[in-house]
Amino acid sequence: MRLELLGASFLALAALTAAAPAQDPLPSWNDGAAKKAIVDFVQATTTQGGAQFVPPAERIATFDQDGTLWVSHPMYSQVVYCLDRVPAVVKAKPELANVEPFKTVLSGNREAIAKLPMPELEKILVATLTGMSVDEFTAQVREWLAKARDPRWKRPYTELTYQPMQELLAYLRANGYKTYIVTGGGQDFVRVYSEQTYGIPPEQVVGTIGGTKYGYDKDGKPFLTKEPKLLLNDDHAGKPEGIHLMIGRRPRAAFGNSTGDQQMLEYTKAGEGARLAMLVLHDDAEREYAYGPARGLPDTKIGTFPPALYDQANKDGWVVISMKDDWKRIFAFEP
Amino acid sequence: MRLELLGASFLALAALTAAAPAQDPLPSWNDGAAKKAIVDFVQATTTQGGAQFVPPAERIATFDQDGTLWVSHPMYSQVVYCLDRVPAVVKAKPELANVEPFKTVLSGNREAIAKLPMPELEKILVATLTGMSVDEFTAQVREWLAKARDPRWKRPYTELTYQPMQELLAYLRANGYKTYIVTGGGQDFVRVYSEQTYGIPPEQVVGTIGGTKYGYDKDGKPFLTKEPKLLLNDDHAGKPEGIHLMIGRRPRAAFGNSTGDQQMLEYTKAGEGARLAMLVLHDDAEREYAYGPARGLPDTKIGTFPPALYDQANKDGWVVISMKDDWKRIFAFEP
Repeated sequence: MRLELLGASFLALAALTAAAPAQDPLPSWNDGAAKKAIVDFVQATTTQGGAQFVPPAERIATFDQDGTLWVSHPMYSQVVYCLDRVPAVVKAKPELANVEPFKTVLSGNREAIAKLPMPELEKILVATLTGMSVDEFTAQVREWLAKARDPRWKRPYTELTYQPMQELLAYLRANGYKTYIVTGGGQDFVRVYSEQTYGIPPEQVVGTIGGTKYGYDKDGKPFLTKEPKLLLNDDHAGKPEGIHLMIGRRPRAAFGNSTGDQQMLEYTKAGEGARLAMLVLHDDAEREYAYGPARGLPDTKIGTFPPALYDQANKDGWVVISMKDDWKRIFAFEP
Repeated sequence: MRLELLGASFLALAALTAAAPAQDPLPSWNDGAAKKAIVDFVQATTTQGGAQFVPPAERIATFDQDGTLWVSHPMYSQVVYCLDRVPAVVKAKPELANVEPFKTVLSGNREAIAKLPMPELEKILVATLTGMSVDEFTAQVREWLAKARDPRWKRPYTELTYQPMQELLAYLRANGYKTYIVTGGGQDFVRVYSEQTYGIPPEQVVGTIGGTKYGYDKDGKPFLTKEPKLLLNDDHAGKPEGIHLMIGRRPRAAFGNSTGDQQMLEYTKAGEGARLAMLVLHDDAEREYAYGPARGLPDTKIGTFPPALYDQANKDGWVVISMKDDWKRIFAFEP
């Protein structure tokens, strides 16, 4: 009797599921090659008994963040964070006020700040990203995220995620894919907001990794201090290295937008069976930004997409997403 | 109509669930303080609306491996692996045959091998754990696991897991906990068998981490090479550091058996709300091994559990599991 009831229940549920109207899981994507590549890949890898079926445990999808999931122009938001933190750092150590590069950053002279050479910029990163406890750092980033506004849209940075990519994340997860961020940004920085912003938990954020040091406070309570020790630069070749370190499996699908993602896409496509590799091309100056320099777009130092990467994409079967043509809308806050 | 059907289905399913007999999720545990601590913790942290309820996303449980999940005496199985690999290494590089420490290992003289000083042992680790591609290494470990037998039980090492701990892993997972291994052993080594042996996927293995290097083979296919570069020694203070690196959240529950787990348990217990910290004490020479030297047990260099750790456990509310008294059976293969 009970088993029959159970059977009846399942049949009733199955009927309901079958009767539900088929909803487009990617409503912000225009119909075209990019959307088709995504849907075909998901259907091929999740169809039981199909030649390209992938067991759920192996469904790993990795996403670059800056320029792939959210806006990275005119400057990476983490760099803005570091510059914004300088006054607090100098307040705690007043002797830095007249020392470069802190002096230039405090001046607020944007042109001079933009010209700071890399070793000087690194001093800012070390001063604002290390030396504090992990919990203090999280609190500092949270506080900044609540107040900081993007200069163009005057919105919190966490609202500047691409709606089509949010739909893609949700679509992959609904089909059993574990979604990871694989970013050149700081792992601890991105973890502060990844769950709320993308539905990606901290343990699924792979980023540039600094060491921490275990110690005890005056009451004997243990805590971790962020050390100025680079364990992994999660960019270019560092991306597949970081994927191996943090995940230990080769992704089935990978998404990027620039040369920093090249090796992650190569590594993903080098695996057997169905693999999906996609690159977002920023060709929409009106709704977001336009930069390449592939396809005659303006050159850029932030998220560069050169002609050679475009050629590699065509040669290796990576799908280029045209922001302008493939995305019906860019942001959730658009009407 | 459809909604009513759905309601009826759920009611029928709920009735079935309620009618099912309550099964003991920990049948290999004797009733006692250890089993009670586990069940109380799980009930407190999973009861909706309870004062100690923990949201599913934060349910993280970390387990040391050697001596906590499986047998680590008379020697860590990974060390046995490294020694067993030496003939293959020397076959590939015959010039090593007369060079120490390879010469001693090849001699098979167990006493001499046991006396090898740490720097010499490290040469063995470097020669057998690095220099090959990640895929080659995985294949080598798989091949060894299939053939190697523990000297006492004459069984594959992967059968020497503790049945009570397997039940604990399954019980925690059934209650929404994500289970992680946090081991001093090599992360890549343990990942080869963790899913099959413990139901723990590679991305949930935190271990001692070596760097990898991205490159291309002669056909231009990318691969990762295991480098002799230590990124994290996941033991003692390295355990909370590794947990932060790999998970980015503080565990709610942590399980160990020796001084190498002390900091992981401290870090776990220092968090707010309900936390569970447990240590396995090997006090059962008949069914497994007996070593401490806590509670007058024989001293050991492998998985030492000194009186100071025992005192800290009592002081800080960590629960000591007596293998002899708390475990009804040790291995799944026992009658």
